[in-house]
Amino acid sequence: MKIEDRNAGRIRRAPEGFLSSDGIRTVVEEAKRDRRDFIRSAFATAVAGAAGGAALAQGKPVPTADGDPNILQLPAHSKGLGKSVVTDGYGKPSEFEGNVQRRQSPGLTPTNQASVSFAPLQSLFGVVTPSGLHFERHHQGWWDIDPSKHRFMINGMVKKPMVFTLEDLMRLPSVSRFHFIECGANTAVEWGNVAVPTAQYTHGMLSCSEFTGVPLVTLLEMAGANLKDGNFVLAEGADGSSMTRTIPMSVIKSGEVFVAYGQNGEMLRPENGYPLRLIVPGIQGVSWVKYLRRIEVGDQPYATKDEAIHYIDLMPGGQHRQYASLQECKSVVTTPSGGQVLLDKGFYNITGLAWSGRGKVKKVDVSVDGGRNWRTARLESPVMSKCLTRFNMNWIWDGKPTIIQSRATDETGYVQPNYRQLRAVRGTRSIYHNNAIQSWLVQENGEVKNVQVS
Amino acid sequence: MKIEDRNAGRIRRAPEGFLSSDGIRTVVEEAKRDRRDFIRSAFATAVAGAAGGAALAQGKPVPTADGDPNILQLPAHSKGLGKSVVTDGYGKPSEFEGNVQRRQSPGLTPTNQASVSFAPLQSLFGVVTPSGLHFERHHQGWWDIDPSKHRFMINGMVKKPMVFTLEDLMRLPSVSRFHFIECGANTAVEWGNVAVPTAQYTHGMLSCSEFTGVPLVTLLEMAGANLKDGNFVLAEGADGSSMTRTIPMSVIKSGEVFVAYGQNGEMLRPENGYPLRLIVPGIQGVSWVKYLRRIEVGDQPYATKDEAIHYIDLMPGGQHRQYASLQECKSVVTTPSGGQVLLDKGFYNITGLAWSGRGKVKKVDVSVDGGRNWRTARLESPVMSKCLTRFNMNWIWDGKPTIIQSRATDETGYVQPNYRQLRAVRGTRSIYHNNAIQSWLVQENGEVKNVQVS
Repeated sequence: MKIEDRNAGRIRRAPEGFLSSDGIRTVVEEAKRDRRDFIRSAFATAVAGAAGGAALAQGKPVPTADGDPNILQLPAHSKGLGKSVVTDGYGKPSEFEGNVQRRQSPGLTPTNQASVSFAPLQSLFGVVTPSGLHFERHHQGWWDIDPSKHRFMINGMVKKPMVFTLEDLMRLPSVSRFHFIECGANTAVEWGNVAVPTAQYTHGMLSCSEFTGVPLVTLLEMAGANLKDGNFVLAEGADGSSMTRTIPMSVIKSGEVFVAYGQNGEMLRPENGYPLRLIVPGIQGVSWVKYLRRIEVGDQPYATKDEAIHYIDLMPGGQHRQYASLQECKSVVTTPSGGQVLLDKGFYNITGLAWSGRGKVKKVDVSVDGGRNWRTARLESPVMSKCLTRFNMNWIWDGKPTIIQSRATDETGYVQPNYRQLRAVRGTRSIYHNNAIQSWLVQENGEVKNVQVS
Repeated sequence: MKIEDRNAGRIRRAPEGFLSSDGIRTVVEEAKRDRRDFIRSAFATAVAGAAGGAALAQGKPVPTADGDPNILQLPAHSKGLGKSVVTDGYGKPSEFEGNVQRRQSPGLTPTNQASVSFAPLQSLFGVVTPSGLHFERHHQGWWDIDPSKHRFMINGMVKKPMVFTLEDLMRLPSVSRFHFIECGANTAVEWGNVAVPTAQYTHGMLSCSEFTGVPLVTLLEMAGANLKDGNFVLAEGADGSSMTRTIPMSVIKSGEVFVAYGQNGEMLRPENGYPLRLIVPGIQGVSWVKYLRRIEVGDQPYATKDEAIHYIDLMPGGQHRQYASLQECKSVVTTPSGGQVLLDKGFYNITGLAWSGRGKVKKVDVSVDGGRNWRTARLESPVMSKCLTRFNMNWIWDGKPTIIQSRATDETGYVQPNYRQLRAVRGTRSIYHNNAIQSWLVQENGEVKNVQVS
């Protein structure tokens, strides 16, 4: 009858104290029985028996108001005076949405300062991630830095080293663009085998925002930087982790990289780099340096700790691969997804997200039979480059067990691989850049489980 | 040196106890002197003296780190351990952004339940409005309705009256689209003369979000509604105001109107209609019925209180115009704008918003000399239909008083009028649908004022 916890983001029936292949204990939350039971008894599905909507017709009875107190009796909010306008600061979500939050995976990281929180993808709509639910990755905790004291410097191979205040930057020509950001380690725990129960934990180091700021190439031109191909810049953050990352000059000269102060209409959030963050579209999140304080221009890669030792890909032969920072084409079905429960057969809207670090998503195919047959999903427009794309597809569940998958193709023709294809190249011992096809098993009782299909 | 309060949204130097032409006393807030004074003394502008950035070069000295403690001394956040990941619910803006909030205009409405709060447009970036800053208009206060008890009914000229739970609706094919919403009364107080000091109060009953929901035409087809042109629907909200609005069937058959549960990635906010709101792109906000509980299909307009008596246009001849609900093409410069202060001459990024209820914005022209000359601004892409469009334009202020204006043209060729053109048709005694060109006077001391130019 309904998709359990579609909205609240609760995880029902994931095994209690679930132990993943990586030894990660995941949080199990009890579903609120009262709400589900009410829904189960209240109506036959509204999807059924429709006159004009042929694709939705299931031959079930049309729901009516008979016996439903929520139709027959006027609620308090139809009779009384409501609350005043919200001018005391800043609006908040409904109290009924309290379970929609980013979550840690206990045991994944040794501290809460050098840690991760995952975005609740299974509860989100469209492509914009609310800033309050944007995933977090901190290497040394987060700070709320006084913007009047923050400085941004450009030095190295430049004619005039420059220092900017935030207000200096905000006077310059700006751009506003929608982009996804994905941690290179997203889906990391699935390399060996199924490790975590829900889309929040398999894919939740992924978010998408409209960012506003100044193209880095503009700033480099102001400083008289040596912009030749083959040069590099080093981006450095102001927090205690001294995060530093090398970026090729050719990427910056494309004009795509910018120094952002705005995110989703307002200033960046403190846990995501306030007051300045580097936006590097299509590249793994670690290069989107938070609390950005310095750009140095040089003529070779800097081989810093976070690119020479961390964020490297362990390959099957025992070697490791550095500077593989592009986020390849990938997708995930967010409903139905692990931890959700389908309470009856019938019509469902399958929905999910697709993205590519190489540009636009060209198409998304969805299988509801474990990969034997594929149908092309509807993409919500506009499809934007290096941005999340929302897809939707009609599905009538016949009540039998089945496996649901999505497979994205980007505008370069690159096709998202399955696990067999990915492991043939990359092995099973890596951490980063797992973009394999995700499989969700819908069981006969409606419970959805994370599984792997080769 | 900086644009005063660009970011904090503070209103500086608006006349104390300002009395508008409508008798509205506006809130005057003191600027925080310490921050401004610090900025004023710290640096010469970073915009100046650039090597490669010809358009930005002003012949001023390049800023250096000399003497700036914020460059020479490592701050605490570069040396210490920060805060833990934010998993206790929901992230919040920086403490330094506390002044960026929606605000009431005291005296505008007799109660706080039937009232308005304005979005701080002068502090926002891009086109997405953070849901916590989305403008509010309540007719009887707002409610946080339990979604498990909310019902949505379709009746009237239908074969099968239907009732939907929220979960029923979330199983149906969905769309996600970016649209602006503007109250028909936005800019209302400017009809007679200059009335309020800032863009927040002149244009802040305007917001823009990515909405997700089910096309109303899908639901009407399921109920076997009579969809012929010339029919109408009545949309009804569940709150105590019994908000009801007529919408022509032809508009609904376009597929543009939908029943939304999602806004900016999450569920609608309570003060904006949680759990269901009707999205009627291009049409004034009052028709975007909040707490939507019923759609009735009929064969004539319903002439309800909120369309026969309220939300009507008083015309010059003494007659009034009903059902004029389309929001015509309009724009506003948000920086520099009233209440902001330019602290020195030199380069500025002029930025603002443009929109049209008829479709896409085609171009925005900007004048920096009171309308004598116009230059075409850069539009951020993608330009979306019935959505805000962000524009930017380079400007070098010579330090002399001048008037800044923007004029939008939409894809139908409609050009935003000036006040003389608007008043020739509409007079001066109206409340709704003022889409005239906004003028901001930059004074020699850098203070920006709201003025009207005919």
